Amino acid sequence: METLFASGNPKRPRNGKRRICFPLTSRAYYGRSQLLLRKLHDHPNVDLELMLGGAILLDKYSRHIADDIERGGFAISASLFNVIEGGNHVAMAKTACLTALEFTNGFHSIDPDIVVICGDRFEQLAIAMAAAYLNKTIAHIEGGDVTGSIDESVRHAITKLAHIHFVTNDEAQRRVLSMGEDPRYVFNTGSLDVEVAAQVTSVLSNERVNSYGVGHAVDITKPFLMVIQHPVTTEADNRRHIETTMEAVCALGMPTIWFWPNSDAGTGEMAESLRHFREHHDSSTERIRFITNVPMDEFIALLKATSCLVGNSSAGIKEGSYLGTPVVNVGARQQGRLNDEHVTHTGHDAEAIACAVRAQLQHGRYPSSRLYHKPDTSQTMVDLLAGLELYTQKSFFDPAPAGTRTS
Amino acid sequence: METLFASGNPKRPRNGKRRICFPLTSRAYYGRSQLLLRKLHDHPNVDLELMLGGAILLDKYSRHIADDIERGGFAISASLFNVIEGGNHVAMAKTACLTALEFTNGFHSIDPDIVVICGDRFEQLAIAMAAAYLNKTIAHIEGGDVTGSIDESVRHAITKLAHIHFVTNDEAQRRVLSMGEDPRYVFNTGSLDVEVAAQVTSVLSNERVNSYGVGHAVDITKPFLMVIQHPVTTEADNRRHIETTMEAVCALGMPTIWFWPNSDAGTGEMAESLRHFREHHDSSTERIRFITNVPMDEFIALLKATSCLVGNSSAGIKEGSYLGTPVVNVGARQQGRLNDEHVTHTGHDAEAIACAVRAQLQHGRYPSSRLYHKPDTSQTMVDLLAGLELYTQKSFFDPAPAGTRTS
Amino acid sequence: METLFASGNPKRPRNGKRRICFPLTSRAYYGRSQLLLRKLHDHPNVDLELMLGGAILLDKYSRHIADDIERGGFAISASLFNVIEGGNHVAMAKTACLTALEFTNGFHSIDPDIVVICGDRFEQLAIAMAAAYLNKTIAHIEGGDVTGSIDESVRHAITKLAHIHFVTNDEAQRRVLSMGEDPRYVFNTGSLDVEVAAQVTSVLSNERVNSYGVGHAVDITKPFLMVIQHPVTTEADNRRHIETTMEAVCALGMPTIWFWPNSDAGTGEMAESLRHFREHHDSSTERIRFITNVPMDEFIALLKATSCLVGNSSAGIKEGSYLGTPVVNVGARQQGRLNDEHVTHTGHDAEAIACAVRAQLQHGRYPSSRLYHKPDTSQTMVDLLAGLELYTQKSFFDPAPAGTRTS
Amino acid sequence: METLFASGNPKRPRNGKRRICFPLTSRAYYGRSQLLLRKLHDHPNVDLELMLGGAILLDKYSRHIADDIERGGFAISASLFNVIEGGNHVAMAKTACLTALEFTNGFHSIDPDIVVICGDRFEQLAIAMAAAYLNKTIAHIEGGDVTGSIDESVRHAITKLAHIHFVTNDEAQRRVLSMGEDPRYVFNTGSLDVEVAAQVTSVLSNERVNSYGVGHAVDITKPFLMVIQHPVTTEADNRRHIETTMEAVCALGMPTIWFWPNSDAGTGEMAESLRHFREHHDSSTERIRFITNVPMDEFIALLKATSCLVGNSSAGIKEGSYLGTPVVNVGARQQGRLNDEHVTHTGHDAEAIACAVRAQLQHGRYPSSRLYHKPDTSQTMVDLLAGLELYTQKSFFDPAPAGTRTS
Repeated sequence: METLFASGNPKRPRNGKRRICFPLTSRAYYGRSQLLLRKLHDHPNVDLELMLGGAILLDKYSRHIADDIERGGFAISASLFNVIEGGNHVAMAKTACLTALEFTNGFHSIDPDIVVICGDRFEQLAIAMAAAYLNKTIAHIEGGDVTGSIDESVRHAITKLAHIHFVTNDEAQRRVLSMGEDPRYVFNTGSLDVEVAAQVTSVLSNERVNSYGVGHAVDITKPFLMVIQHPVTTEADNRRHIETTMEAVCALGMPTIWFWPNSDAGTGEMAESLRHFREHHDSSTERIRFITNVPMDEFIALLKATSCLVGNSSAGIKEGSYLGTPVVNVGARQQGRLNDEHVTHTGHDAEAIACAVRAQLQHGRYPSSRLYHKPDTSQTMVDLLAGLELYTQKSFFDPAPAGTRTS
Repeated sequence: METLFASGNPKRPRNGKRRICFPLTSRAYYGRSQLLLRKLHDHPNVDLELMLGGAILLDKYSRHIADDIERGGFAISASLFNVIEGGNHVAMAKTACLTALEFTNGFHSIDPDIVVICGDRFEQLAIAMAAAYLNKTIAHIEGGDVTGSIDESVRHAITKLAHIHFVTNDEAQRRVLSMGEDPRYVFNTGSLDVEVAAQVTSVLSNERVNSYGVGHAVDITKPFLMVIQHPVTTEADNRRHIETTMEAVCALGMPTIWFWPNSDAGTGEMAESLRHFREHHDSSTERIRFITNVPMDEFIALLKATSCLVGNSSAGIKEGSYLGTPVVNVGARQQGRLNDEHVTHTGHDAEAIACAVRAQLQHGRYPSSRLYHKPDTSQTMVDLLAGLELYTQKSFFDPAPAGTRTS
Repeated sequence: METLFASGNPKRPRNGKRRICFPLTSRAYYGRSQLLLRKLHDHPNVDLELMLGGAILLDKYSRHIADDIERGGFAISASLFNVIEGGNHVAMAKTACLTALEFTNGFHSIDPDIVVICGDRFEQLAIAMAAAYLNKTIAHIEGGDVTGSIDESVRHAITKLAHIHFVTNDEAQRRVLSMGEDPRYVFNTGSLDVEVAAQVTSVLSNERVNSYGVGHAVDITKPFLMVIQHPVTTEADNRRHIETTMEAVCALGMPTIWFWPNSDAGTGEMAESLRHFREHHDSSTERIRFITNVPMDEFIALLKATSCLVGNSSAGIKEGSYLGTPVVNVGARQQGRLNDEHVTHTGHDAEAIACAVRAQLQHGRYPSSRLYHKPDTSQTMVDLLAGLELYTQKSFFDPAPAGTRTS
Repeated sequence: METLFASGNPKRPRNGKRRICFPLTSRAYYGRSQLLLRKLHDHPNVDLELMLGGAILLDKYSRHIADDIERGGFAISASLFNVIEGGNHVAMAKTACLTALEFTNGFHSIDPDIVVICGDRFEQLAIAMAAAYLNKTIAHIEGGDVTGSIDESVRHAITKLAHIHFVTNDEAQRRVLSMGEDPRYVFNTGSLDVEVAAQVTSVLSNERVNSYGVGHAVDITKPFLMVIQHPVTTEADNRRHIETTMEAVCALGMPTIWFWPNSDAGTGEMAESLRHFREHHDSSTERIRFITNVPMDEFIALLKATSCLVGNSSAGIKEGSYLGTPVVNVGARQQGRLNDEHVTHTGHDAEAIACAVRAQLQHGRYPSSRLYHKPDTSQTMVDLLAGLELYTQKSFFDPAPAGTRTS
């Protein structure tokens, strides 16, 4: 085998720098990783290679983000179309497999020292698996959290394939250690998203906001709601759930910026439901603007300005904690995720949602929390990625037995 | 989406029985699972569906096993050629992805209640991932063990995707719980392999043994060695390692039955090395018979008869413990796996291996150990698979804090 | 190999009937093949197996058609999601490959005597290739025509893989023979589409038409235009081309039913262009209704009713010839296709298009042409498919040399 | 779409040279193309990119060839493991699909002006399809020939996807034109294989020959036979066919160099048959040496030296015609291929084969034929590839009607 690789080998020759491969598969990962990416790109001993695949390349979700990336001067090693249409579980599973199959070729030719895996999206587990089978050292960002949805399984399975762990809070650190990871390679660096959120100072104009999406103009200088409700891939009721939220929002009668659901399994019926609502209940939606996405800094500016965020986005719990945004978290997607007092949880019940929003409106903004925040998150990561001694053979690290802890 | 599935839907209609899907990808999994498969097949409330893929379908490894399966009267739902040639890491990663992509179609059309994942082979993680993304309940056999090789990562990652855990020993159970699995779904049932080994009573004839493979005849009524040394996919030295073992075995000068390495990454160079040895050092190998594989019961009969098993097979540690077979375990593949006193560990050093074998020959067979053995392993599993309440949404189960355990 | 297949073999046992596998990958193929499918399904010596894949399964294009198929009582052997998102050439090529890879498994397990390949869509060539490699006899419908686009290459390449040829006109027959096909297996049966069109008698209500799609109501009892303009995958100017047609149609100021472009490469920019037009030029589009698709019989009813069909659909040239519909064919997609006098060809020039439409409006409907029509098209095909002696090894049939023809 | 490509675009920037992409998937294609590859590589206005995939990368067939390629200083853009194990039709079809899927990514990022497709191997059709869907100009080498096997279909289907045709003889040229290709782009350049054969002057030593393969030494200074019998993928009797040839060769009792069959579907049973023969009929095979392959120049030297070539290799018919080698062609694989008087055809009948060989031995070598030979084959191709005006939209070129030819 080695002889074969030595001969037909298209591997990139090494130049003494640590080569770090960063697969980007969604707009969100690019947004929250931008400080880290910039610092890795600028590090004298690091060669950073971006690999694009999955939803980030698809026109309807991410055209402008791809422009951003290129303008950023980043090296893009691969750009692979591998999302299988359908918006259902079959398409999701096959997309993950095809993505990993194609990234394997990239990992082999780029031959990175480290592959960085972000978060808990379904295709990231497949990519981590491929990287592990190629004997690459894997660094995982945001392990150890607890949530609902398939993300819960994906996140912890990635942890068990990864060698370096960047967690965002103390509880996550405790769980990653409990799962048998080596304490010398588990780091609570705080959240990259929150670090980005803490640095955004821009203010958003009405004109800018209303240049995005379709629907009615929203005046963000006055109280307004934000809604972000993504599909929960382990549930069959995504259509009913989004209709419930829609019902609550219509009942509240406030100007609302509604973000389109992401492309996970279940998205088709949610999107159809929203489209149907928009076409057929024009009066009910006359205060709503539907937006697919906005740049990260403008998103943060909206989070700072909104009276209440409704839905099931992690941004409410994480960025929201630092920004003090009132949040009504609906349903099981974030179930179990560590949150501060700014979050109220409700089930899929229109009245309960409306009631919780009214209570949050009455309360107003919260003081900034440090639950997910540490200073210098991205710099800490870069220093570790560039300097840590690397290993590939994992071994379950048995935590000290309970009895010895008290000694 | 639901509407779409309802219409273009090729799903099997349900018949009130619990439908259990059992992907078989290697001869070893079939061998060790045969008691379980038989009992599931015979259970009145279970529909068992075998899905074949990966190495088990390949001529050179498993022709007779496929015949066996068919003769067993089992329903084979899919039979998918998806092994990518190369015997290297790229082929391994891509094989895993392609296998999972194709099994996805099968899982969707069979629509099982439970998917049973065995062990820690690389393609089984990919299959588990696909099953998880289709919202299937996953039962995992043999989680929680610690070993070397990529198997170590694969096994624990599967645990974090699985819902029902059948572990083979107390330490494994402790680890699976520490990883956050729900104690109500973690069962120490003992090892299926050992249950099979405990039931084999057949004795093997010289004629039968020497009808397999190539090389010189071995008289198994007199002392003989067995060698099983598989590639370690996380290592680059597989060729040197097998040469070292060959050197030790030649130095010992005993009749030897040498099992061909399995098809994992690294197998190409190991096979070439063995072939080269056989062609060019005829005098050194004149006591060696090379065999690709034998039926499970004959394999157990050999384990009972051999003076010492050399190499890195888990059979030495698990079945060997019950049978009392002296074992010299070489290298990192089984590193950390719980073993009884019948195992001596050595590194890849010809003299050390030969020395350890001589000591084992002097010691002779060991008393039977119960480390991996429980009565009724397969029956316990069947009862649980047929009767347990199933769930799909996982949630990290935080073990009770250390302080409360002693109360 | 044979032994292996005999053992691990999931092939369907044979029942003495001729087994015919019919891959359906687009709504259009189902629509035009429905008489053939019904007759094959009802034939006492034929087992018909539909295999669904590609665009036909995707929610946004074909939900109701999948319902139709199921209600028709057809056996659906496979239902495979394999369309890769992107709407560009990379996605198109990879979709073809993935579709064929998955259909291979189906062909192997269904083990058909004949695989029927329709038309000239890109994934059909890949499917034909897979069927050929499995040694299946391939019947091809609609070979020998000349058009523009990649379809031109796809169609003739399928001819060279196929064993039985059903062509729709004399010129096509001459070309298929010139390409070296065996004259005993080349049949001019007329066009299935035209046979369907000839049988439709239903009349369409305004209410029904305006229940589809979005935009403004169109009164089809008064003069109206139809527009169908699909992407041309070999061209880079699809956006400009559709804008040109839009400009022409707006200038004409007539009520218009505009069919959404199909999902071929280039569709993204065309759809975006249409959406942009609709959102931003509301006054210009106030007479236009946008429709994704309608059932075949209603489509024919519209073709009968419209004053002029504009665009690049083959329906204008084929069904239109029989129905006498005035057609303005725009651009290269149908370039070279045999047409009757009811078609006027123009380039992508707004003024030329508008001018040609005005001339057609003035001319009015044409007498029915028999260019693509023969009686009993589908029955002829069924008789041949059920009764022909089959072969698999092809051999270039050298046409008689020119000199001997006159003898 | 264009915007998307412009942004997420990993395409290689253009440098004014014509970029030519040459997929190599088998040792044979490299061997016969080496003069062409060298001249393309050295051409000042050409960037040559080799892409390796398929069997050429697999250890057991082609290790040394990959070394050769690298030593040749060629740029290898991709090296993709995509052969699916099994040696049967399912594996063959899926290998073709996976190869094309992966080459699509390469074609997109390399963005060649021309893709060169060689011959008629199954994966080359899939690669040609992918290239066509990406709107690349395709040059095809060796179209228009007639043979047996699936190659016959593959070759002509490639012709219908290709834009530039390099054929090797007048009859092939006539057929390619008859299939509707543009006469301005169909060139009879003679055969690359024969050009290579004509240039080889090296003489082979006994020592060298007997350093390859296994079995008994052959003295090539005395009369000896060569056997090359590949699987015929459209036949089910490959095992019996090779046994028949073996029987004939054993009966002849001459020293024989037997080349191992290639990896096409059916190879498994042929290889098993040969192995079985070798292990169990040692006396019958005591004059036979089994060789997997040798470098091109040594192969030609053997063809010059052998008393008779037996089997179904095209080398017998093509290179053999120029070298005057007596050939006994067995079975249907080369059926219909244009050949000169040095070839005797027989069926799969041991006595007939032995009888034909004896007749050829009596006849001795033939005078050199010019059937497949033209001077400067590779230089002519290079000039055309570098200088021809390129096009992508194909259009069936209707040959002049028969009646006008005589005018």
